[in-house]
Amino acid sequence: MNPLAAAKPLDEAARAAALARQAQLTKPPGSLGRLEALATTLAAMQGRALPRIQQPWISIFAADHGVAEEGVSAFPQAVTQQMLANFVGGGAAISVLAREAGATLEVIDVGTLAPSPVAGVIQAQVACCTANFCRQPAMSATQAHAALDAGAAACARAQAGGADLFIGGEMGIANTTTAAALACALLGLPGAALAGAGTGVDSAGVARKAALIDRALALHGLAAAPSDPLQALCAVGGFEIGALAGAYLAAAQAGVPVLVDGFICSAAALLAVRLNPGARDWMLFAHASAESGHAAILRALDAQPLLALDMRLGEASGAAAAIPLLRLACALHAGMATFAEAGVANG
Amino acid sequence: MNPLAAAKPLDEAARAAALARQAQLTKPPGSLGRLEALATTLAAMQGRALPRIQQPWISIFAADHGVAEEGVSAFPQAVTQQMLANFVGGGAAISVLAREAGATLEVIDVGTLAPSPVAGVIQAQVACCTANFCRQPAMSATQAHAALDAGAAACARAQAGGADLFIGGEMGIANTTTAAALACALLGLPGAALAGAGTGVDSAGVARKAALIDRALALHGLAAAPSDPLQALCAVGGFEIGALAGAYLAAAQAGVPVLVDGFICSAAALLAVRLNPGARDWMLFAHASAESGHAAILRALDAQPLLALDMRLGEASGAAAAIPLLRLACALHAGMATFAEAGVANG
Repeated sequence: MNPLAAAKPLDEAARAAALARQAQLTKPPGSLGRLEALATTLAAMQGRALPRIQQPWISIFAADHGVAEEGVSAFPQAVTQQMLANFVGGGAAISVLAREAGATLEVIDVGTLAPSPVAGVIQAQVACCTANFCRQPAMSATQAHAALDAGAAACARAQAGGADLFIGGEMGIANTTTAAALACALLGLPGAALAGAGTGVDSAGVARKAALIDRALALHGLAAAPSDPLQALCAVGGFEIGALAGAYLAAAQAGVPVLVDGFICSAAALLAVRLNPGARDWMLFAHASAESGHAAILRALDAQPLLALDMRLGEASGAAAAIPLLRLACALHAGMATFAEAGVANG
Repeated sequence: MNPLAAAKPLDEAARAAALARQAQLTKPPGSLGRLEALATTLAAMQGRALPRIQQPWISIFAADHGVAEEGVSAFPQAVTQQMLANFVGGGAAISVLAREAGATLEVIDVGTLAPSPVAGVIQAQVACCTANFCRQPAMSATQAHAALDAGAAACARAQAGGADLFIGGEMGIANTTTAAALACALLGLPGAALAGAGTGVDSAGVARKAALIDRALALHGLAAAPSDPLQALCAVGGFEIGALAGAYLAAAQAGVPVLVDGFICSAAALLAVRLNPGARDWMLFAHASAESGHAAILRALDAQPLLALDMRLGEASGAAAAIPLLRLACALHAGMATFAEAGVANG
């Protein structure tokens, strides 16, 4: 893929038509709050005055991280592979949420240590694992582009499947450390600004993550944000994060609305937007993660998530939980009567 | 109804069983955030380790307010009646949301100025309108009890209909003023603490509402909270607010979980809890309203709503928008695999 190719412009005529309709619905202006803006934004993205979410698509990218050998996670690295089987077997949180949403769920191995392919998982390994970024770059430039391509391929499958909403998710033991390091590099922040508890390390563990990130930023000359954001991906990124960024960029180029999940997905969204600012127009943000560094990344993206439920699971679970709000916004927008239709006095 | 009859105790054995199950599901402990507590709380309310929301019930109580003659609303009083037809005709926001949720929706006229019954609306008028509480008590003690009874009757219909979740909603031009006055009386606060923009008055209008509430509190000797909360309902309340409180109390006595909507419903919930503190155990709070006084009422109830979407419509719209979160909490709780089932290492 070409990450720099222009994003599709939003359809401002469709937005204007949707705004005009909102003003006629039987409610005080603005009284449905963010559900109103959701409907009119989706109208501009989908190019129709009455947007709809009928075919949500969820792609989960899984990868392993060399930095896991530094002991930054509460779970053993083998859990990445074990969870692949749980995703396709239907027992993971995202499996349940995808069923409830009627969403297509696909799982892509973009580079895990799984010794043999897991049935039902799409094989798109960039490598079996990134390198430990405390010692050397996590990946080569070729691998970074391969990761972006794996994400773009998922977006192409979503489009071919008629998706009207794209959700990316991730699985990878140690990937809150990777995501924090990448976002620190892109934002020019020290490790302490973005390191958090992840799946459950204690405060000493968080301090260790922060110190390790600072060490890696110094090693790779990333104390200030690099001129090319891909340098940061190569130095301290992960394959699933690169794939997410590639999928977000491809979605913006193709004109498919994106619903961004939590901390790790937001770091990938930041990478996508730093590569190609027009991608931001195609992003909706689903939830504010309990992971402490998420707020800083959201601020950098000028993003206000829809939900704040103290979730910190990843797997696209926060995004899937927000699908009903998008659908309700569309249903209210299309289904409510106008003042004239209902014979109700308008203020 | 007897508002003081004891609330049904929660089922702590069911809660314990649900908590034990949560600890075995394939996710880091706590990583589903508030969705976990929702599932275990619903388990305690419904008396089963695997709770479910299959039959939500929505009762909208409509009433007119004598205080509307003071010009406190952005909409004319006739809108109360016009919206009754819109609710049953399917064009109101709550009509759309109830359809999307598969919820039963009933509309009850507990005292509007509608000149003739609106087809499809349940007739349970306490009177045609409350009195203007700036001049005299809004209602008599007999009327206050009739309003509570109208709410209890709705809860009985919900139970007979197999409801596993009760949602109350309201419609009544000027009822943010009434709700603010009632909550000020119950909390011993001045009008400025709770008066807000309602459906859209400007800052001068808000100041007028606050001054009018202070005048009413003085007139009725309510500058400090009364020993009997029903005194506050009689002095400055509304029929739909009394009905909501009656429904909440009846639901707690019968053991039906309640999902409380926004500002006006929270004022009714406060009245119910001040009458009978055990009712609080049966309440979940759906959304933080954009109405400025809501936060103070929520604090007094120690309530943390699930959603914050800047909604301020009423009609139970915020509660209906939160139904999917309750369902997802139940689906995750019942449908996720345990660590043992999935062969995933547990930390």
